[in-house]
Amino acid sequence: MPQPSDPLDRFYSVIPAGGVGSRLWPLSRADAPKFLHDLTGSGQTLLRDTWDRLVPLSGDQRIMVVTGRAHRAAVEEQLPELADPNVVLESEPRDSSAAIGLAAAILEKREPGVIIGSFAADHVINSIPLFHQAVREAVAAADAGYIVTIGIQPTEPAIGFGYIKTAGPLEIEGAGSALSVNSFVEKPTRPTAKRYLANGNYLWNAGMFIARADRLLEEIGASEPELLAGLQELAEAWDTPERGAVVDKVWPRLKRIAIDYSVAEPAAAKGKLAVIPGLFDWDDVGDFASVAKLHSGGRKHDLAILGQNARVLADSSSGIVVSHSGRMIALVGVEDIVVVDTPDALLVTTSANAQKVKAVVDALKLSGSSDVL
Amino acid sequence: MPQPSDPLDRFYSVIPAGGVGSRLWPLSRADAPKFLHDLTGSGQTLLRDTWDRLVPLSGDQRIMVVTGRAHRAAVEEQLPELADPNVVLESEPRDSSAAIGLAAAILEKREPGVIIGSFAADHVINSIPLFHQAVREAVAAADAGYIVTIGIQPTEPAIGFGYIKTAGPLEIEGAGSALSVNSFVEKPTRPTAKRYLANGNYLWNAGMFIARADRLLEEIGASEPELLAGLQELAEAWDTPERGAVVDKVWPRLKRIAIDYSVAEPAAAKGKLAVIPGLFDWDDVGDFASVAKLHSGGRKHDLAILGQNARVLADSSSGIVVSHSGRMIALVGVEDIVVVDTPDALLVTTSANAQKVKAVVDALKLSGSSDVL
Repeated sequence: MPQPSDPLDRFYSVIPAGGVGSRLWPLSRADAPKFLHDLTGSGQTLLRDTWDRLVPLSGDQRIMVVTGRAHRAAVEEQLPELADPNVVLESEPRDSSAAIGLAAAILEKREPGVIIGSFAADHVINSIPLFHQAVREAVAAADAGYIVTIGIQPTEPAIGFGYIKTAGPLEIEGAGSALSVNSFVEKPTRPTAKRYLANGNYLWNAGMFIARADRLLEEIGASEPELLAGLQELAEAWDTPERGAVVDKVWPRLKRIAIDYSVAEPAAAKGKLAVIPGLFDWDDVGDFASVAKLHSGGRKHDLAILGQNARVLADSSSGIVVSHSGRMIALVGVEDIVVVDTPDALLVTTSANAQKVKAVVDALKLSGSSDVL
Repeated sequence: MPQPSDPLDRFYSVIPAGGVGSRLWPLSRADAPKFLHDLTGSGQTLLRDTWDRLVPLSGDQRIMVVTGRAHRAAVEEQLPELADPNVVLESEPRDSSAAIGLAAAILEKREPGVIIGSFAADHVINSIPLFHQAVREAVAAADAGYIVTIGIQPTEPAIGFGYIKTAGPLEIEGAGSALSVNSFVEKPTRPTAKRYLANGNYLWNAGMFIARADRLLEEIGASEPELLAGLQELAEAWDTPERGAVVDKVWPRLKRIAIDYSVAEPAAAKGKLAVIPGLFDWDDVGDFASVAKLHSGGRKHDLAILGQNARVLADSSSGIVVSHSGRMIALVGVEDIVVVDTPDALLVTTSANAQKVKAVVDALKLSGSSDVL
């Protein structure tokens, strides 16, 4: 007896591999962004981890990567299975609506009815089976016409993430845990984050979006019609000899806007956004405090050491050392320290100040020290 | 009318340039000991500072340097005026009684009646006129037959130095401030150091010894007759073709003992030790906290930066950065930090833990990491 078509058969993964990860300087650089590093000690890059996590869902011929021209070689080295038509190169960054919208427009033209899921190249997820289960539910909800996100069940009052306030169940077939969304809320203060955690109706916004490509484009068109027109012009030309000329003309003029604002929030306002609570461990590894936490397994007084052939001698010290220089590193009596040692730049800070590292990068830009950025 | 001979005319300066300065690792190394560094920002090495301070007292042809064979070239580069007969090379370190005793024996043989003053190569002294005044008094007291030391008037309850407990005035002609010595005391605890400071009869032991060479040798002979015999055998052969053979035979067998124990304490017990209170600023620059203090002028929240072409970006940070690698160094929110960045080794500690750096060096030795020592 033939089964009804599984919507996962129409699923395509999209990996936007863009951000440098300024808070992870001097490890992350313009020419060595966060997604090209092994921050988990898994032995492979975050990008490769992301790929491996998605293959069981969409297969390795149905994963598209959107990245900068400068990173093409590094991406292809990490992902030798990546098919040439699945490489989308940005001539310059235009934010997530353009990146994901272009992928949606290209894929919808090639394969009408396709369902896409966009997953950042530089996040960390444990409990892969729970992740897969959540994506399967998300794909079912997307097939029913929803814009879908996966919100992570908070495990602590984090202040580094935005939150999604959920409302009641949606009762979608194949997506039994789908909830409607009340609103998106920005990164909270610590007391507010504690309130969110106690309340139980708030999930972390992990920036994962799953939707039918046509529905995603429809939402972009409703909020940003010029952006949609540009994306469609690009998609028309993409698989033709005109691609280069059209990209040069259209891409640099696309509006820079996060997909949260062009798609997710408008859809939520119309009751067309569904959220699947994700019960898996997730982290965006946004700063070195987060990297340290990943490695310490939550043990406060440990010293995490990253880097091949690291030579570290530590006495009464805790925190994290990232060694990319091969030098001997000695720590004496420093608690919750962050030391990142690279051949041309050194960072010394504390876990508590890890978010401020972005300001260092900004200051280095202003002072003309781009040789170390 | 002829003046009575000024004892300073018979004065010879001796600079033992030996210790590595382990607490200043990774700046100080076996092949780049503390005395070859500029730790004051003066633009020249501590050894050169020491030389320049002594020239007005003894003249540049009457300064002898006792150093290791490995440092000969570096010492001569720093001190181009240093006369060849004034270079005494140790084949291996045998502590201060051997180093200073050998200088005394050589000089006494060359010039009977000579008065020698021994001053470490790696200390910092400000108020040079007050230093010169103290040495002049010390030379007068030495001429009267005393073993003389200069004790530094404490300015704070330091726990990193030994102390000299003084007794009454000695009334020596030309040495009006000379006091007799009650005893030498070891590095105290903080409460004891506070008591010493309040008491007023305690001076810091700066390891400066001034004496007639014959008197110094007499004291060594009284406490360590075998050591004296060895030194005399060396001195007999020193200015002859036999030097090399005798050094090879005698030097490695000399007893290792600090001059404090072979000369100063026995002389004190016999009432033959005089101390001249030194009113000048002095520091042995024993660790990076001390280096930081020298550079901050006592201002607690400053960040001292040492090193030519240092590139340092600091946000809300204090302490000291020593940059010998040319790398960009960024500090974010670290207080009283010590960062010492060299091409092959990095140290991160705090001012409060600066004394513990010696333990790092010991651990590196044990772990076979001598490439960075």
